Amino acid sequence: MSTIIESLKWRYATKIFDINRKLTDNQVNTLKHSISLTASSLGLQPYKIIVVSDHKIKKSLFPHSYNQLQITTASHLFVFCAIEKIDDSYTQEFIKLMSKIQNKSMEDLHGYKSMINNFINNSDDGAKLLWASKQTYIAIGNLLTTCALEEIDACPMEGFDAEKYSEILSLKEKGLKVLALVATGFRSKDDKYGIMPKVRKVYSDLFVEM
Amino acid sequence: MSTIIESLKWRYATKIFDINRKLTDNQVNTLKHSISLTASSLGLQPYKIIVVSDHKIKKSLFPHSYNQLQITTASHLFVFCAIEKIDDSYTQEFIKLMSKIQNKSMEDLHGYKSMINNFINNSDDGAKLLWASKQTYIAIGNLLTTCALEEIDACPMEGFDAEKYSEILSLKEKGLKVLALVATGFRSKDDKYGIMPKVRKVYSDLFVEM
Repeated sequence: MSTIIESLKWRYATKIFDINRKLTDNQVNTLKHSISLTASSLGLQPYKIIVVSDHKIKKSLFPHSYNQLQITTASHLFVFCAIEKIDDSYTQEFIKLMSKIQNKSMEDLHGYKSMINNFINNSDDGAKLLWASKQTYIAIGNLLTTCALEEIDACPMEGFDAEKYSEILSLKEKGLKVLALVATGFRSKDDKYGIMPKVRKVYSDLFVEM
Repeated sequence: MSTIIESLKWRYATKIFDINRKLTDNQVNTLKHSISLTASSLGLQPYKIIVVSDHKIKKSLFPHSYNQLQITTASHLFVFCAIEKIDDSYTQEFIKLMSKIQNKSMEDLHGYKSMINNFINNSDDGAKLLWASKQTYIAIGNLLTTCALEEIDACPMEGFDAEKYSEILSLKEKGLKVLALVATGFRSKDDKYGIMPKVRKVYSDLFVEM
């Protein structure tokens, strides 16, 4: 069996982390590097991630997360947010970055810029948020797999009070809308969920071959 | 640098695949296994994936995909669909499966079942589709990373005519709504995109540390 399958079998949605074990700077950097390399529609990376390691902040988020122990026991909490304002000036910044990295003139990139602006200007705020949300979840999927490969435990979470999170992390001022969390760290011996067999559909219920 | 980062740097959104190279059965199985191990909210896997290897079908999808060459040159096309009807009977099937795999009685699982039904019955069709879509994109993120690790090229795609796809793949009859594609195979030498440097935001634009 390949390494990736072994790793994915090893991972599980960790409910309690060992509070005495923290991610090293190297590990945090690998996770950030991985997130930054995630594929996104048109390459626009329409998200921002708050990486919370401060215990006081985690403690203040705890009661607004149904008191789930992942929040306070995690080493690092990745708070995935969509960028609310994706407009012409966002495209402009992206094209500037592309021009610099790929050593192309703004004229060379005119066609690509028009294509992006065409998409942006033909989508209303709701459609853009949905699009940005989907891209964000690709990054979450990538992060969870990266964690598994690096033997870092993780728990994806959607159960929290988005308004309270927004207040505590000043997300409105940053133009961000919180979507989901990934708590990371190392599984506690007290967490009974790690040894439970995974419940997964049989292939015939999950795939159709054509 | 860790393997995962090297692999993620190697991957890119492949525009043309080598039509002479196909995924082996083993490779297809690894990708399916990986998808099936993806984390999902409440464990419900609210999606189904059509795996298209038949060239005639790929050819019929091509004109409804802006004539993008990925469609016809890919070895296997993974068509990610959300399941439209997530209701009490869906929960019932899931709980039955959980009972079997984890060797628990239906009574033991009553609390979990109530929690799921509570979520389902308090969400309208739009909210459930959004929720299912997000879960589907976690699977897409996982698949893309798995492909990179297995040195299989891939391209995530959202540019296609969903209605035509639905018709050709009989998705309505299957109760599915198509969301996105991942074309897989092996990069063609004719694809110039593989050597272009990746455009990615600097960390300070992507992360906030707290």
